[in-house]
Amino acid sequence: MTHRAVRWYPPSFDIRVEDVPKPKIEKPDDAIVKVTLGALCGSDLHIYRGHGGVDKVHTSGHEFIGEVIQLGDQANAQKEGNLPELKVGDKVVAPFTVSCGECQYVYSSFCGHYGLTVTISVCRVGYTCRCPSGFLFGSPVLEGGQAQFIRVPHAAATLLPLSTLFPSGKVPNDSSLLLLADILPTGVFGALQLLNHPKVATIRDGKPWPDHFAFPISNASTVSTMKEEDKTLNLAVIGLGPVGICAIVALLDALWRGSLKYRIVAIDLLEGRREKMKVVYDRVMQNEADKKQFGEFVVLPPDEAKAKVAEWTNGIGCTGVLEAVGHIDALELAFDLVRAFGTITSVGVHGAAQIPFTGRQLYNKNISLDFGRCPARAMVPLAAELLLKRQDVFGEVGTASSLVDRVAPLDEAPEMYRKFEKGDVGKVLFDPWK
Amino acid sequence: MTHRAVRWYPPSFDIRVEDVPKPKIEKPDDAIVKVTLGALCGSDLHIYRGHGGVDKVHTSGHEFIGEVIQLGDQANAQKEGNLPELKVGDKVVAPFTVSCGECQYVYSSFCGHYGLTVTISVCRVGYTCRCPSGFLFGSPVLEGGQAQFIRVPHAAATLLPLSTLFPSGKVPNDSSLLLLADILPTGVFGALQLLNHPKVATIRDGKPWPDHFAFPISNASTVSTMKEEDKTLNLAVIGLGPVGICAIVALLDALWRGSLKYRIVAIDLLEGRREKMKVVYDRVMQNEADKKQFGEFVVLPPDEAKAKVAEWTNGIGCTGVLEAVGHIDALELAFDLVRAFGTITSVGVHGAAQIPFTGRQLYNKNISLDFGRCPARAMVPLAAELLLKRQDVFGEVGTASSLVDRVAPLDEAPEMYRKFEKGDVGKVLFDPWK
Repeated sequence: MTHRAVRWYPPSFDIRVEDVPKPKIEKPDDAIVKVTLGALCGSDLHIYRGHGGVDKVHTSGHEFIGEVIQLGDQANAQKEGNLPELKVGDKVVAPFTVSCGECQYVYSSFCGHYGLTVTISVCRVGYTCRCPSGFLFGSPVLEGGQAQFIRVPHAAATLLPLSTLFPSGKVPNDSSLLLLADILPTGVFGALQLLNHPKVATIRDGKPWPDHFAFPISNASTVSTMKEEDKTLNLAVIGLGPVGICAIVALLDALWRGSLKYRIVAIDLLEGRREKMKVVYDRVMQNEADKKQFGEFVVLPPDEAKAKVAEWTNGIGCTGVLEAVGHIDALELAFDLVRAFGTITSVGVHGAAQIPFTGRQLYNKNISLDFGRCPARAMVPLAAELLLKRQDVFGEVGTASSLVDRVAPLDEAPEMYRKFEKGDVGKVLFDPWK
Repeated sequence: MTHRAVRWYPPSFDIRVEDVPKPKIEKPDDAIVKVTLGALCGSDLHIYRGHGGVDKVHTSGHEFIGEVIQLGDQANAQKEGNLPELKVGDKVVAPFTVSCGECQYVYSSFCGHYGLTVTISVCRVGYTCRCPSGFLFGSPVLEGGQAQFIRVPHAAATLLPLSTLFPSGKVPNDSSLLLLADILPTGVFGALQLLNHPKVATIRDGKPWPDHFAFPISNASTVSTMKEEDKTLNLAVIGLGPVGICAIVALLDALWRGSLKYRIVAIDLLEGRREKMKVVYDRVMQNEADKKQFGEFVVLPPDEAKAKVAEWTNGIGCTGVLEAVGHIDALELAFDLVRAFGTITSVGVHGAAQIPFTGRQLYNKNISLDFGRCPARAMVPLAAELLLKRQDVFGEVGTASSLVDRVAPLDEAPEMYRKFEKGDVGKVLFDPWK
């Protein structure tokens, strides 16, 4: 039994579509999923270009949706963690990393200092992307979703059935569901991490220091009295790829829900990305015009963005900056844009370069930083709410506002990788049955 | 009219006690304060050693308390910001930086990109240590408190009268009041910033991701269910100088007030500092023995601390690490100790060295970082509550548990600086009238 799969070959730029053995149940909590759509994501390019330190041939792709066709005999045995019961025939979204949902596993530390065999708590806290028995799909240790079938470990703790995500029965279309695998939860994660940082919450809630410290409650008085004009959130988003655009849609949704006053500058070097951002924003506003009173929104290249922030904030800078690029230059821009006592949320996938700040720079500006990968399994339910609400933005393929450029057959994968790497095509979904 | 003052001379290690012109009102919102006690602080050593990039002779010292003896004719004219009314004769605590309380000042940016003349909001949000018209006492731009008299700019927005801080009339003793100038509010700031970071609050409140995001409220479900054993806060404090000890006393107070379960490892390379920490802890526990049930507390050198954290947390690491050293080595230790999805709060004064982490390290461990100076004016009221409550720890001079080693006359300043720099004496207060 074989199936068609997109295979990566070392050292780089070598993608082949091949017939390989069909995946089968290997462990009792596995599921086999028939892939409806797999996708090409910007971070696939790390491995494609040979930057991932990978030398093992494997099936590519960490984004996919599909249908459960087989379950291991212990797939639903786990009683912890509020897990849905999986059934053959379930249509499912797969977060881009596997998670066990309970974390009772052997663990070797991230730092290499400890080699203990231990019990730990990661998934139970919702940190699903750092589950010690959780791997990234489409990596040397776990075959990916650019294929007809895929094996999903810890299936019940990893997969999310559409019936769980959309209990009303109203379900977004397939091409937009694919966005739940990675980029939309990552955008939501970035937006909520930014808006919930204490330095942003200070302005958001109009509670000056130290009153903004929720714990422990004190009766001590403060010197400060915030005025109305202090309560506008000045925010910047750097990087308008699919994740950056998702983050902005999530930010706007959250800001509107809270009736908060804001100014957002959305920043990218590339004109094409800026144009798409503008079209998406217009599309969103068309259906939310009454909410425009709360804010301002501009899309600019970096230098013009700096000038705009200076004008908006009288030179002081943004309370929060979201960095969705994963490059040192973007962190430097974020530092230039952020105010003293501001925070930078980075959801970009960063590499081997050292963080470009001195301790004195961070001390002198009282900067906060949040780094890291979206715990997608934990964030997908929130992202699903937004996806359904914003089908006007996410529901289309190949239009000026859509985040998905086209749906291609698997056999076009080598060409699509080449074009995607050069920027000649946007986000591509693969239909393995086309 | 002259007064006695401790003067720093370039390039380094040159401290003289001299008669210099007595300070006088220069601006209408100035006050002149008769200094009761000034102090020597670890960060004075930056300038003493010639590391501060300073070449101007000036009066040293950013920590002092005293009595108002003269007020400019506009000292109480400011109506904003919940300011106390200052009167001649008021006994006052001075935070180590000046702040205007309203921030309607010309501002040139922190980054040097903007040269605009603008109106901004800093003090109104409580970020008093970054007030654009606020300077550090004992620096080339503002004479310090190791002297008989001192001029205090923006007096009503900077100084805190004891009658405001201690409305009950019960007032801590003078040597402990001096701790309110810097090290106790800095410790409280570090402790509260750590305990209020979202990644600590997740564990503190037992709310797994994404439920811990307070904003905006969502009905989406989560995969995760936290167990009781997940709710213990594993914390580390690196650096047991006076600020580190204050931070730990503040941490313990907050944890007890919240009835939270915790484990704390307190870390220093120096045995003498570890011994003082143990004595302070025993002193605190002597009066809070019923609260011991909530936690564990150990004091260790770095390598043993790593092993203890591995044992406590089964190799996963601490949820929060407080760094009170201001050195790259301490940040590296913090990184080794912190868990994935953990946070590092740094209150150390950092220098020109680049942050020693790659983007990949921070991404792969989902690390958060908070840097910066304590906004002391905003934090002093909270610190004052703790000071009064913990006179058993802070109220003594020269005992094994006290943070103040001795009170010396001004004329001994050159000798005290020499000994302090070599570690032969602990924190020294100067009585300029002795």
